[in-house]
Amino acid sequence: MSTKKYVYMFTETDETMKNLCGGKGANLGQMTKLGLPIPQGFTVTTEACTYYYQNGEKLSSDIIEEVKKAMKKLEEITGKEFGNPNNPLLVSVRSGARVSMPGMMDTILNLGLNEEVVAGLASKTGNPRFAYDSYRRFIQMYSDVVMGLSKKRFEEIIDEMKEKRNIKLDIEFTADDFKEMIIKFKNFYKQEMKAEFPTEPKEQLFGAITAVFRSWENPRANYYRKMNGIPASWGTAVNVQSMVYGNMGETSGTGVAFTRNPATGENKLYGEYLINAQGEDVVAGVRTPSQIETLQEVMPSVYKQFVELSQKLEQHFKDMQDIEYTIEDSKLYLLQTRSGKRTAQAALRIAVEMYESGMITKEQALMLVQPQQLDNLLHPQFDTNNLKEVAIVGEGLPASPGAACGKIVFNVKEAIERTQKGEKVVLVRLETSPEDIEGMDVSEGILTARGGMTSHAAVVARGMGKCCVSGCKTLVVKEDEGYILIGDKKFTREDYIALDGTTGNIYGGKVKTVPATISGNFEKFMNWADEVRRLKVRTNADTPRDAKQARAFGAEGIGLCRTEHMFFDPDRIQAMREMIVSDTTEQREKALEKLLPMQRGDFEELFEAMGNFPVTIRYLDPPLHEFLPTSEEDIESIAKELGITAEALTNKVRSLHEFNPMMGHRGCRLAVSYPELAKMQTRAVIEAYINVKKRNPEYTPVPEIMIPLVGEVAELKYVKNIVCETADAILKENNMSVDYKVGTMIEIPRAAVLADEIAKEADFFSFGTNDLTQMTFGFSRDDAGSFLGEYYNKRIYEFDPFAKVDQKGVGKLIKMAATLGRETKSNLKLGVCGEHGGEPSSIEFFNSVGLDYVSCSPYRVPIARLAAAQAVIKSKK
Amino acid sequence: MSTKKYVYMFTETDETMKNLCGGKGANLGQMTKLGLPIPQGFTVTTEACTYYYQNGEKLSSDIIEEVKKAMKKLEEITGKEFGNPNNPLLVSVRSGARVSMPGMMDTILNLGLNEEVVAGLASKTGNPRFAYDSYRRFIQMYSDVVMGLSKKRFEEIIDEMKEKRNIKLDIEFTADDFKEMIIKFKNFYKQEMKAEFPTEPKEQLFGAITAVFRSWENPRANYYRKMNGIPASWGTAVNVQSMVYGNMGETSGTGVAFTRNPATGENKLYGEYLINAQGEDVVAGVRTPSQIETLQEVMPSVYKQFVELSQKLEQHFKDMQDIEYTIEDSKLYLLQTRSGKRTAQAALRIAVEMYESGMITKEQALMLVQPQQLDNLLHPQFDTNNLKEVAIVGEGLPASPGAACGKIVFNVKEAIERTQKGEKVVLVRLETSPEDIEGMDVSEGILTARGGMTSHAAVVARGMGKCCVSGCKTLVVKEDEGYILIGDKKFTREDYIALDGTTGNIYGGKVKTVPATISGNFEKFMNWADEVRRLKVRTNADTPRDAKQARAFGAEGIGLCRTEHMFFDPDRIQAMREMIVSDTTEQREKALEKLLPMQRGDFEELFEAMGNFPVTIRYLDPPLHEFLPTSEEDIESIAKELGITAEALTNKVRSLHEFNPMMGHRGCRLAVSYPELAKMQTRAVIEAYINVKKRNPEYTPVPEIMIPLVGEVAELKYVKNIVCETADAILKENNMSVDYKVGTMIEIPRAAVLADEIAKEADFFSFGTNDLTQMTFGFSRDDAGSFLGEYYNKRIYEFDPFAKVDQKGVGKLIKMAATLGRETKSNLKLGVCGEHGGEPSSIEFFNSVGLDYVSCSPYRVPIARLAAAQAVIKSKK
Repeated sequence: MSTKKYVYMFTETDETMKNLCGGKGANLGQMTKLGLPIPQGFTVTTEACTYYYQNGEKLSSDIIEEVKKAMKKLEEITGKEFGNPNNPLLVSVRSGARVSMPGMMDTILNLGLNEEVVAGLASKTGNPRFAYDSYRRFIQMYSDVVMGLSKKRFEEIIDEMKEKRNIKLDIEFTADDFKEMIIKFKNFYKQEMKAEFPTEPKEQLFGAITAVFRSWENPRANYYRKMNGIPASWGTAVNVQSMVYGNMGETSGTGVAFTRNPATGENKLYGEYLINAQGEDVVAGVRTPSQIETLQEVMPSVYKQFVELSQKLEQHFKDMQDIEYTIEDSKLYLLQTRSGKRTAQAALRIAVEMYESGMITKEQALMLVQPQQLDNLLHPQFDTNNLKEVAIVGEGLPASPGAACGKIVFNVKEAIERTQKGEKVVLVRLETSPEDIEGMDVSEGILTARGGMTSHAAVVARGMGKCCVSGCKTLVVKEDEGYILIGDKKFTREDYIALDGTTGNIYGGKVKTVPATISGNFEKFMNWADEVRRLKVRTNADTPRDAKQARAFGAEGIGLCRTEHMFFDPDRIQAMREMIVSDTTEQREKALEKLLPMQRGDFEELFEAMGNFPVTIRYLDPPLHEFLPTSEEDIESIAKELGITAEALTNKVRSLHEFNPMMGHRGCRLAVSYPELAKMQTRAVIEAYINVKKRNPEYTPVPEIMIPLVGEVAELKYVKNIVCETADAILKENNMSVDYKVGTMIEIPRAAVLADEIAKEADFFSFGTNDLTQMTFGFSRDDAGSFLGEYYNKRIYEFDPFAKVDQKGVGKLIKMAATLGRETKSNLKLGVCGEHGGEPSSIEFFNSVGLDYVSCSPYRVPIARLAAAQAVIKSKK
Repeated sequence: MSTKKYVYMFTETDETMKNLCGGKGANLGQMTKLGLPIPQGFTVTTEACTYYYQNGEKLSSDIIEEVKKAMKKLEEITGKEFGNPNNPLLVSVRSGARVSMPGMMDTILNLGLNEEVVAGLASKTGNPRFAYDSYRRFIQMYSDVVMGLSKKRFEEIIDEMKEKRNIKLDIEFTADDFKEMIIKFKNFYKQEMKAEFPTEPKEQLFGAITAVFRSWENPRANYYRKMNGIPASWGTAVNVQSMVYGNMGETSGTGVAFTRNPATGENKLYGEYLINAQGEDVVAGVRTPSQIETLQEVMPSVYKQFVELSQKLEQHFKDMQDIEYTIEDSKLYLLQTRSGKRTAQAALRIAVEMYESGMITKEQALMLVQPQQLDNLLHPQFDTNNLKEVAIVGEGLPASPGAACGKIVFNVKEAIERTQKGEKVVLVRLETSPEDIEGMDVSEGILTARGGMTSHAAVVARGMGKCCVSGCKTLVVKEDEGYILIGDKKFTREDYIALDGTTGNIYGGKVKTVPATISGNFEKFMNWADEVRRLKVRTNADTPRDAKQARAFGAEGIGLCRTEHMFFDPDRIQAMREMIVSDTTEQREKALEKLLPMQRGDFEELFEAMGNFPVTIRYLDPPLHEFLPTSEEDIESIAKELGITAEALTNKVRSLHEFNPMMGHRGCRLAVSYPELAKMQTRAVIEAYINVKKRNPEYTPVPEIMIPLVGEVAELKYVKNIVCETADAILKENNMSVDYKVGTMIEIPRAAVLADEIAKEADFFSFGTNDLTQMTFGFSRDDAGSFLGEYYNKRIYEFDPFAKVDQKGVGKLIKMAATLGRETKSNLKLGVCGEHGGEPSSIEFFNSVGLDYVSCSPYRVPIARLAAAQAVIKSKK
């Protein structure tokens, strides 16, 4: 017997209990504590969910007993009775994970109804229309969520009835219409399920709780979790809350509001409501709701109360809140509150203004923006000049800011297929639903005909940082015919449209973009991050353009310049190929002589772009066969260029073939075989230094020469000796000196394990987490796609170790190497130049193990700066 | 200034100083201590050699000074003066590493001679022939060894003079002949070197010392070291010893002797000598020497003294000794002693007889045989029946036992080229020289026309465990014409000959072989090893035949059965292919259904072969594309067999293509994707158990199911659950039980690092050191060949980590995994099934980190048993 407690009344919980009760449950408890008008209820914990899965997807008897007891207590609190037609208690059953996953899991409202209870409710409220509306909604939701029946048939029944009755809106249905509808729904249910629709409220309740637990594992929740790095092991809680009714008539309603504008961050209540409706009507975007300001006229006192309460919540939680509420017969109830999803612009503005108003500290402000969100601000914006030349063909609500341009797609499948082919697409839908999440993710932007600023499309798009224009009234979607109309303009699958999510404008063509800059709130905020962080942030850059962009984004040096990228240039690859097909050292040296001035020129530009910041130059890394052609045709023509026979070139290509090129003749192994390569590269680095220094005496470039793929100290020493002999000779000749560094990448497990030895010969370590991850896991990134899918499905891995560093395994090696390295050389500089260097959770890890810097692509530099600051703040807790 | 002492007089050293003074130097010191007749001298240490290399291949001034001082002392001891014509001290300069490397490095005799000194020596000894013979020898050796002039021209000069004088042997030359020869030698020297032959004895001495140090790095020494796992960092010592002269006439001579027969182990003095000769004449095999027994008649008292001294040396060193001696004018001098190289048969007999005579303990006896040597005894021997049918065409000396059969090759180059093509060859030479070592290594056996039992060919062949017949007087080698004659039989490159190294017989054709058995001394000795060792020894075996062979060699179970080898069988591969081309689980299951009875049958046979010993079954490991055809032709025909289109099969082949197959979809990743695979294999294992148990109730097979390529505990758990569910269901059905185990291979670095977690789900770990080495070093075994050569040349790696486990890097992971695993589960069984499981130095390591067993190929089982015993003995020291 378990001694765990699986069910908590709202009166027993508070905001500190998110892990156990989920965000929604914890906040409902906290709001109860704060004395706010909360329909009471209870929470079935996340641990119950985990237990449910461990128990073969069954509710255990102790959980069932606890729920029954909680139900009894709820009956006492509400003075109503579950299943009693004379005084019925109805409940909602809703999911609530540790972190909010809007729309991803299931909700059931009005649970507890059957023929007797609905009749009792009708007579007790004197509002049969309300009662039967509630019942038909319950049947619809229960059939879908608990029993897995398709929603479509229910919607068809409604549409058929509308047609017959010649009405347009649900709201025009009468009580009798709903009664008729209920009969039709139940018939359909019976036909499909070969059983009557369940009438026993307790059966309904446990069915619904089970369904919510089950919905934790539905495909869209899985996708969302993967996208947001939420472990499946967390589970969801279930909240059972007594119903209040927004569908009781013209003095009732339901709505959603944000304490500040989630798109812009403006400090102004922002929301929508629908009169005579239940919650999902607002979110689903079926009716376009009214702006919250208008409530001031419709129900002034309710509006006043809501404004007060929402400010109280924001003050309490010290963050912008997303509040669901219901007005039942002119009485206001809050159904939930949570930190609101917001755009990056809004997040920055809210953080800055809350700090400046004295509501929060700088460190608290820094925690209010998710580093990943910044990505959005860094990508190109529409070129305003070009924008004037492209016609505006329509407009919608500016639901999620950003600039999106692409060809039209109509559904998820199409979006995925076409983006996999490399196309940029805009997803155009009548309205979006939770099933569309993957399609939204891959699209440039989303355009919908229906739905307001709090509709599914808008909320999810803002969460993703994806541009969205919603509720475009002039949009007609003809998916089957393969076109859309915006006003009278027709667009097919091959046409481009462009969306401006900040204005809501829709452009009928392709629009050019310009790079982003950091200014205003963004700049202010990033400066705070810089004050707090300990990790330096460098960039991975191979070109002066990238280097300059990264500097503009605040990079403090280059952490990785991949020299081979310079060799793939069409002007250069021939000299590279000459080098490769050489048979003697002399021939190779001659070919390298041609590459020298080009490489030196590159380094000069990089040094100049980086001023006095360090530039880490990684020596040639890829296997040589990557530079050679593979098709017979190319071999023929390139052999001619090289002045050798096609046969000779074919033989060379063959001789360089490798079974496992990732583990082949590459990295410093090339320099061991061909020391002349390292000599040429050293000459280029040092001569570039000399040239830059002579041209601009105010610059003092800091060259850091990085030897890749080292697995043994003797190997590093061998190459280092070549580097130092070459460099020192050139410097002596020129009567100059420079404190160049020679270090190594730690990307082979053996190097990590023997880091104490390797540190003897290294001025710095840079963790190459891409290769280190591959070799530590023993799978190649190029090939892992074919089986990792099953690993995620089967929960063997929860996330992609190439996206987030695997702290447990790879991280253990990194920590070991850092410790061993510093045991040998306490001032050993440690950095990371794998792609993880720009990923926030990885950055937190790198901060914790004492690295000196991370290096990432230019566009991730601001993200890394913020993540590094947050890592420091979190580490203090 | 260094405070190290680089030079030791023989009077200052003893046998404990081998690391510093080399084996020869230490033993000369010890013999001096024992009061034996040793020409005195001094040793320049191995540290001086290392210093020489660190110092840019120059002798440092402090070493030079120490040598000069030692020379002064030697002059005092001998009462002679270096360079003084009236009373000249001459010396030999010889290499001497920690372990004996016969013939690999350089030696110079008679150093200190010039025109004045040779004249003085002639008049002082009254033996001008001796004096000028010594001088011409010195010029030859010095020119070759120190100056790098080709020996060939010197030999040509000698041959021309013989022709002119119409004589056959060197011994027929007169003093005047030698004087003429000296002039010719010096002229040739001057012509080549553009300088006079050096006359200053000190210059000669330092030239010679430098040359010996240099010879540590010559190609044959490198090859020998690689073959024997001797680190280059050890360096060699140099011994400078005052000369005694075997070439002073008919009462002088020189020879080599073993205290027991190095070929058979017989306890009887065994050796050879030449009258009026210097050392290298015996070893080089130019003249065929006399058996040592005949010395009894020629110089009875010298013989008697030698027998006494040799017994004293064997008693002292407690091992069979290889002694060099010189008789100068009827006086016996010992020039060196060392443990003699011997054949495996001899090693066993000597060890057993020394123990049985009470000379040594069992543990000392166990240390007298090198585990690798046993290999020799395990390989097939000539089938004595077939032997009778093949004609004996000649005979030679049984220089090194064994059975060799192959086609004729004439030189090293040819031997290497043809063996690389997969041919088996016998190297046939007039005589062998140190340059031939690599060719000897790759050949099946060696046949020479010249040389005795202590000739180069014989000594090196015995050291290698290579069959050798030497001194076949009826052999004529016509290399340029491409044939040999043995008697009147002619053999070309395409003809087979067979050598019996135990009898000296040469057979004119191919001879069949039969498997070896363990009996006699071998069996006795192996039983001693079993008494001492702690590690169990299992075998890697996929077939009942291998399993039975391994049992006969003493294996205590199967440590690795690679189930996929069973699928490559032509009868089975089609069902395997059907499985692979399946699109659905049902199709796959159907194909697997066909494989089940075959696999079950294999396991039944293996269980029966192993009785009550454990059988570790590794589940399917290789990527599936290995089972599919690649050529268009094969695809065409196999598609037909499979009943699908060639296009469909081509698509399948393409879809399974991997960039780095070693790090691709293989190992337990297959079972995660296709659980039905693991189910079928489990069914086969458990049903095989049940069938065997029912047939033979006295057998209780111990199935150990091994999940390969695990990198994460959840992955192991997933597959283990499938295994256990399947197994338990079958056992329940059959109302039987078996204590089957489920374990994993540790072959991915992440698994080693997270072994504490993985141990939670594993009954055992088996280290897959092949893959673990690949992934830890980050190089693929298939590809590393293209660059590892340079790594050895440049001393970055000293040995092949696929041959000997890399204790420093890979070993650190193994140790970590063993420790972590046992922290979780103290009774966790630990083994190794990579190829290192049969390599002695690796076995010593595995013993030291506490593994329970090693597993190796059947033919390595006895080697592993002995190595495991030696590991225990060494660990006690």
